[in-house]
Amino acid sequence: MKIELICIGTELLEGKPNTNVSFVGDRIFALGFNLSRAVTVEDSKPRIEEAFKEAIARADVIISTGGLGSTFDDLTVEALAAAIGRKTYLNTDVLSHIEKHFASRNMQMPSVNKKQAHIIEGAKIVENKIGTAPGQIIELQDKIVFLLPGPPRELHPMFEASVSPYLRKRVTKLRKSVTLHVFGLTESAVEEKIEKIVSDESVVDRGVVNFTILAHHGMVDIKISAGGADELLIDETLHNLKKEFVDVLGDYLYGYDNETLESVVGNLLMKNKLTLSVAESCTGGMLSSRIINIPGSSHYFVEGLTVYSDEAKMKRLGLKNETLQKYGAVSREAAEEMLNGLKEIAASYCSIAVTGIAGPGGATPEKPVGLVYIGVQTPLSRTISEFRFYGSRNEIRERASLTALDLLRRELMKFK
Amino acid sequence: MKIELICIGTELLEGKPNTNVSFVGDRIFALGFNLSRAVTVEDSKPRIEEAFKEAIARADVIISTGGLGSTFDDLTVEALAAAIGRKTYLNTDVLSHIEKHFASRNMQMPSVNKKQAHIIEGAKIVENKIGTAPGQIIELQDKIVFLLPGPPRELHPMFEASVSPYLRKRVTKLRKSVTLHVFGLTESAVEEKIEKIVSDESVVDRGVVNFTILAHHGMVDIKISAGGADELLIDETLHNLKKEFVDVLGDYLYGYDNETLESVVGNLLMKNKLTLSVAESCTGGMLSSRIINIPGSSHYFVEGLTVYSDEAKMKRLGLKNETLQKYGAVSREAAEEMLNGLKEIAASYCSIAVTGIAGPGGATPEKPVGLVYIGVQTPLSRTISEFRFYGSRNEIRERASLTALDLLRRELMKFK
Repeated sequence: MKIELICIGTELLEGKPNTNVSFVGDRIFALGFNLSRAVTVEDSKPRIEEAFKEAIARADVIISTGGLGSTFDDLTVEALAAAIGRKTYLNTDVLSHIEKHFASRNMQMPSVNKKQAHIIEGAKIVENKIGTAPGQIIELQDKIVFLLPGPPRELHPMFEASVSPYLRKRVTKLRKSVTLHVFGLTESAVEEKIEKIVSDESVVDRGVVNFTILAHHGMVDIKISAGGADELLIDETLHNLKKEFVDVLGDYLYGYDNETLESVVGNLLMKNKLTLSVAESCTGGMLSSRIINIPGSSHYFVEGLTVYSDEAKMKRLGLKNETLQKYGAVSREAAEEMLNGLKEIAASYCSIAVTGIAGPGGATPEKPVGLVYIGVQTPLSRTISEFRFYGSRNEIRERASLTALDLLRRELMKFK
Repeated sequence: MKIELICIGTELLEGKPNTNVSFVGDRIFALGFNLSRAVTVEDSKPRIEEAFKEAIARADVIISTGGLGSTFDDLTVEALAAAIGRKTYLNTDVLSHIEKHFASRNMQMPSVNKKQAHIIEGAKIVENKIGTAPGQIIELQDKIVFLLPGPPRELHPMFEASVSPYLRKRVTKLRKSVTLHVFGLTESAVEEKIEKIVSDESVVDRGVVNFTILAHHGMVDIKISAGGADELLIDETLHNLKKEFVDVLGDYLYGYDNETLESVVGNLLMKNKLTLSVAESCTGGMLSSRIINIPGSSHYFVEGLTVYSDEAKMKRLGLKNETLQKYGAVSREAAEEMLNGLKEIAASYCSIAVTGIAGPGGATPEKPVGLVYIGVQTPLSRTISEFRFYGSRNEIRERASLTALDLLRRELMKFK
């Protein structure tokens, strides 16, 4: 079965990042199929029509994203209608659904949104629970077209409600995968460590095992997929491969699949009935924001202090003016005092303190941009580490926040 | 001039994010042209050949990324050679360049890399200073094909060294654009407000003005582009359009181009020599992290308190236990006391306090997920506002952070 994707939107050809190709590709792969082509076209009726005609001639399943909005440049519905020679009509059910969407927000429906109730003759409607644009499913003899919206938060649930069940019914081979998350190694260092496994002929020979390495924000993900008809064999293959990877990656491997550094740290804190407070200077709330994004973090997170100014460092955490004068706010000594101050005022079992120079200003010959001190305290240990991170202001702050979480994770793993 | 992009790589259709479309699109747009289509195809010789044939039939400039590596599934060169009926040959200059690349790393060139020295007859070579795969430029009568590598850090400099100068020489019209940033209106509400301007025949008639609307994270961007031969006319067009937009958007319009809510707020604070501290519960550091991401924010940002637990709210900001018992931590009264407490302890002219239910847990029938109170205090005013945000935990927190910044922005605009 051939599946193609059409992404519609001029902005996607003018520099706007598009995550829909990777989302759709990933989901289709996980469902046991392959996306064979993805095309991006501008908001022009003839171009969209042409793309639909080409895809319908080649593929069995055609998925489009985007161009279902209410504005003048949303042309997907009329373009597909023209491509397949069907008419559209105003669907009153859809219209009242859109009106209700606005009513529930105490708003009147803007008149332009009426456009979104135009449906292609014979189309099935895919409900949009987030936004106003419904999806449409059009069957054409032995082919099928799914029109889905472009915004990821609308696309994702609607894909699961429409394309996923359609493909699941047609699966002929199974495919399963597991993603391993690594922190603290570069992409090439990971590649070197796993080279023996991924170049093993006996693995590759099965012709059903796939490896993808993905580096992002200083983290490296390894996705292992196995496919075939025999689910037991797939599970066994994945299980054995996973074990081999665990062996070579050691504690650089911090989690699997949907786990994140902050969810892993959260679970370790919960398991050990520990609590956490943080004091941040250069990361300035980014660390606590990450921790708090885990639902239920209120069970272990007590408080965060963004002591950005020297004044706040002294007033809130009792940093000595003398320390700031002698060593500066970005120093091992300052990190140490931040940790002491936090421990004193916050009734938490664990503490993290971060101070550094995120740049672009504030650097000196001795203290370059990217210099960061991170202090981590648990009931069992206390460490102050010095780092030199590279990248933009935001990248340095991201990297420092993740490293702080990883340092705490490594300390918490010592609890048995 | 029609320009098309072909991205080659099976992994890009199996979930690996691809930033090459947005990079190439952005650069081409900035150079005064338009990318008219981007296609992603798998590592299959017939598929790549087909994509080249189609693109060459339609476009004047064809750019491909990927498939220039040394492994068996790198097929771009042979596929293009087949598509245009040319031969390839082993280029000894390129070969010795690749050998030197390895020698400089004290390595011997693996034999598979010899493949990368195969060049299409008549092709010009684009040097790769980062990796081993050279780029190739193939002229076909009135068309041109650029073969460039897939990894962004190799692609970006090679694009600048090959495609950019080619396009710069052929620029016939200038293009300038300005992006307007709007907060507090939905995409359709913006569309309604600007409908008169963008559907004005006298504007559209010039055939050189482009509007793109882009909604993301509760913000709406309007990009206005104007092209033509006469720079003065372009500037005038943009200037006049901008004025029309300012009139209809009013103070929902918060900035232009690279400005963000936090940079605009930062500038207003600087201009008025004011300082800021924040107290956050549900946003938990996200607000202060945003503020601090602006270089130089140390001039106005004093401190942030992430008072996530009730305990921290009482200890840090003096919230009364009685208030928490009677009204709860998510209440107008709690926001009020947080603001009072913050004003008392932090020596800042301005304060923001945020408390809310980000979900998925913690809701009650009276207090649903998404209920957020935001208090804003400046030397001139004090407001406590109630909001009901929608979306995931992270989206509600994002929305609350942005709304808090916008509320402060609106108050700071009252300073003259």
